[in-house]
Amino acid sequence: MAFDFLLFCQRNPKPCPLLEVLEAGKTEPSLAPGSDIRSDLPRYRIYREGEWTEEVTNIRDHWQDNLVTFLLGCSFTFEQALLESGISLRHVSEGSNVSMYVTNIPTNAAGAFSGPMVVSMRPIHMDQVVRAVQVTSRFPGAHGAPIHLGDPAAIGIKNLGKPDFGDPVEIRNDEVPVFWACGVTPQAVAQTCRPPFMVTHSPGHMFITDARDADLAVI
Amino acid sequence: MAFDFLLFCQRNPKPCPLLEVLEAGKTEPSLAPGSDIRSDLPRYRIYREGEWTEEVTNIRDHWQDNLVTFLLGCSFTFEQALLESGISLRHVSEGSNVSMYVTNIPTNAAGAFSGPMVVSMRPIHMDQVVRAVQVTSRFPGAHGAPIHLGDPAAIGIKNLGKPDFGDPVEIRNDEVPVFWACGVTPQAVAQTCRPPFMVTHSPGHMFITDARDADLAVI
Repeated sequence: MAFDFLLFCQRNPKPCPLLEVLEAGKTEPSLAPGSDIRSDLPRYRIYREGEWTEEVTNIRDHWQDNLVTFLLGCSFTFEQALLESGISLRHVSEGSNVSMYVTNIPTNAAGAFSGPMVVSMRPIHMDQVVRAVQVTSRFPGAHGAPIHLGDPAAIGIKNLGKPDFGDPVEIRNDEVPVFWACGVTPQAVAQTCRPPFMVTHSPGHMFITDARDADLAVI
Repeated sequence: MAFDFLLFCQRNPKPCPLLEVLEAGKTEPSLAPGSDIRSDLPRYRIYREGEWTEEVTNIRDHWQDNLVTFLLGCSFTFEQALLESGISLRHVSEGSNVSMYVTNIPTNAAGAFSGPMVVSMRPIHMDQVVRAVQVTSRFPGAHGAPIHLGDPAAIGIKNLGKPDFGDPVEIRNDEVPVFWACGVTPQAVAQTCRPPFMVTHSPGHMFITDARDADLAVI
């Protein structure tokens, strides 16, 4: 199952930008020496047979030596680069969570893992869309370039005002909705397989390391 | 073993830029629909217990349904972009193979797979080194940006005139040796583990697809 999930990530680098894989039983990521993956996320979700059963602040009591850990990049990494390029982000200025939607874009299957891609959406001023594509292209480890921009219906999104995850934001007439592959994809896909035991971060409660954003930039 | 090698590639994306993985028994890469991985390389090398025993032009008779196939990017992909940027490549103009060296740069181990990184070297005019870094940074799927430039001794290379693989080339006074991670690394590393049965391409006899170079560019 670890091989299949690793393969799923390899086949879907936009929603699943793998930063590190910890082999079975390992708890200290190289990305954050001295840290412990069992306690250093702010919040965890535990799933049993695909059902979310608990939300906890550490998983020491739940740890099993056959657990393989996957660390994926997060689009919050490139948001700082967007802001530094003068591109404002409404969910940041409003202090809300980013809007996320299930699309009709299929992921590339691997073993038991398959399903549609989840995307995050940010309204970008039409004059800044090209720059937003360029800036985020530099960060393939944080989902990279958008997977779509413009017409939401073209990727199976019926109503931008009703995101499947996160909070809705206003889209003004001079703005284009821009869609990036989202790290909720692998969680949703994994959940669908109903593995006996799975732990994820709780949405918005990411593992934070000392690595600089620039470390994830390809140029 | 397939998991360990996949993990090795994930941990060493510069020498091992994974373009595709074919699950056990699969023979048709998505990168080249209609192709057959058992016959469509110009030349193969077969290793048994780590020893190179045969060189063949197809492996249909040797195929086993438990074989997992790994397709890695090749620096020949970014050479066209270098040439188009006005950067001449001596081994290309001389019609020889690129110089390759074993370094003292360790790869990140995974399972049984570990060992030093192999690099390819191209002499670049000092005025074009920055551009060469930029151009190749766009192609992480073809080994990407250089891993070193300048002093060969700093990465454990004693004599540039005696490459470990490929052919030597002259380095002029106004040129800098520039080193890129090389796809010989995973072969050398895999060979060291002495797997019971392994097939690789023969050096310089790569699998060629219809994919355009630009398809591998991140921006």
